[in-house]
Amino acid sequence: MMPEVEVKEIREAAARIAPHIHRTPVMTSRTFNRMAGGVETYFKCENLQRGGAFKLRGATNFLLSIPESDVGKGVVAFSSGNHAQAVAIAAGIRGTKATLVMPTDAPKSKVAATQGYGGSIVRYDRLKEDREAIGRRIAEETGATLVPPFDHPWIIAGQGTAALELLEDTPNLDALCVCVGGGGLLSGSSVAAKALRPDIRIFGVEPERANDWSLSMAAGRPVEIPPPDTIADGLRPPKPGKLTFALAQPRIERIVLVTEEEIIETMKFLLLRMKILVEPSGAVSAAALLHGKLPPDVRSAGVILSGGNVDWELLREL
Amino acid sequence: MMPEVEVKEIREAAARIAPHIHRTPVMTSRTFNRMAGGVETYFKCENLQRGGAFKLRGATNFLLSIPESDVGKGVVAFSSGNHAQAVAIAAGIRGTKATLVMPTDAPKSKVAATQGYGGSIVRYDRLKEDREAIGRRIAEETGATLVPPFDHPWIIAGQGTAALELLEDTPNLDALCVCVGGGGLLSGSSVAAKALRPDIRIFGVEPERANDWSLSMAAGRPVEIPPPDTIADGLRPPKPGKLTFALAQPRIERIVLVTEEEIIETMKFLLLRMKILVEPSGAVSAAALLHGKLPPDVRSAGVILSGGNVDWELLREL
Repeated sequence: MMPEVEVKEIREAAARIAPHIHRTPVMTSRTFNRMAGGVETYFKCENLQRGGAFKLRGATNFLLSIPESDVGKGVVAFSSGNHAQAVAIAAGIRGTKATLVMPTDAPKSKVAATQGYGGSIVRYDRLKEDREAIGRRIAEETGATLVPPFDHPWIIAGQGTAALELLEDTPNLDALCVCVGGGGLLSGSSVAAKALRPDIRIFGVEPERANDWSLSMAAGRPVEIPPPDTIADGLRPPKPGKLTFALAQPRIERIVLVTEEEIIETMKFLLLRMKILVEPSGAVSAAALLHGKLPPDVRSAGVILSGGNVDWELLREL
Repeated sequence: MMPEVEVKEIREAAARIAPHIHRTPVMTSRTFNRMAGGVETYFKCENLQRGGAFKLRGATNFLLSIPESDVGKGVVAFSSGNHAQAVAIAAGIRGTKATLVMPTDAPKSKVAATQGYGGSIVRYDRLKEDREAIGRRIAEETGATLVPPFDHPWIIAGQGTAALELLEDTPNLDALCVCVGGGGLLSGSSVAAKALRPDIRIFGVEPERANDWSLSMAAGRPVEIPPPDTIADGLRPPKPGKLTFALAQPRIERIVLVTEEEIIETMKFLLLRMKILVEPSGAVSAAALLHGKLPPDVRSAGVILSGGNVDWELLREL
């Protein structure tokens, strides 16, 4: 079977979205390297991306790939997080309307940011209603295109552009560390990185408390876990995507697990020492390095800091 | 009288320090621009500089300019803030020792960071002892070179490299906004900017509560105020430097004042929306734009975010 996403699609996505996204900087910190046992670490700062996360890459590639005949009917997505903001911005880029299905208890700041980007919000009761059903009903009634959060070739190709840029900007990395929830970023990055550097070692990183990818790698197929309780809210999808798993599984060396405490400590280091706000999900890949979870012969690593959308309330809790 | 710092010295400083400092990124935010009344704003992120502030530029240029015969005797500086960390790092770059005179009640994180960079700390009681006298005594006894915080041509030339880079990276700015305490960054940046673009408009920005530069501009000479009480601790020098004032005064359009609340609100915006940690002093220049303090015909502006060294305690207070 042909894979549905190859580096060709990622390069095309990169050209398509380039006018609309930030080429985010690659940062380094000698103090971090020292604390990571001397591993030279290169941080791809997707927390500095428009909308505060890498999600804009996939959403923009998706929106720009929708056929002209469907664009006028708008798009719909269900998400309380970064995907919602990304779809709202991407709809503006394509010149259409986005409807975002968000829970009534979603953080006000995320709702406000999404509205600020021009998105319309449909609220639902998380305990009583099914957001996917609401999203599908809106799509059916209005003809709007549903924008899936990760398991779609256009999304995956878009997310892969983050690794493409990182490898263009950073020579000779031994390894690449990518956080994994649904797997859009991990699968796209794996395809891009292995195409550019076949000998690069790729590690997916997830919270111990959301170890569905770890279990799935052991089982050789997507395994579902109960709804995970982790501070890394972007990594809560309980199961790998079909396509994301099929693309990532043969390309990654293994899945690395980090604790909640390791995530929080890493967030604090990135904030106070490197001066960048990274959300818990975004700090997961850096936590693997800071806490010595990679094989000792890895001497240089790229790390994608996936996002930076943090509430004032969460900051206070830390 | 010939000015003691011209763009030639700043270019030489840039070449001298380039191997040791980060060329910091220039960031933009459409949301910020919208909130700033449509002014296209370009942020020079010196909070992402090594040591967390632009101060490393001047300190490194100074250390690398010390004659070979004096280097072995080390350097000494009195500072509880970013200058101390910068001198500690710069001493490591030059391969010599730094002694930093810091108050007994200096924040632990700053003491620890300074020690982490290899600096030796001499503590003093802020209420009973005179840090300048202690610093001078150490210099006399050991032959160490005193590294002044701002009022020295080597320091000023080093700080000016921040504006040099910003103007190289950003075309056609109407204006440049620079925070001002002692004036090292403002004077160096003014010299660099006016040499590269004679028609650029330069605004110094300081807290209302630390308005010594504003009063000095009105008086036409450096005026001293009582020790100012502002959250922007890097801007507390009570009086412009002689050299910094002489260089900046003819080049700047005026000094703009911002309130404590405007500084805090700007810090929060930079943190939560732009995902970068900027200390109060560093947010001052951006506050001028976010709160509409510039003339309305300014349509594009460069802003130097001077530093990002913030304590966990201060963050909590916000």
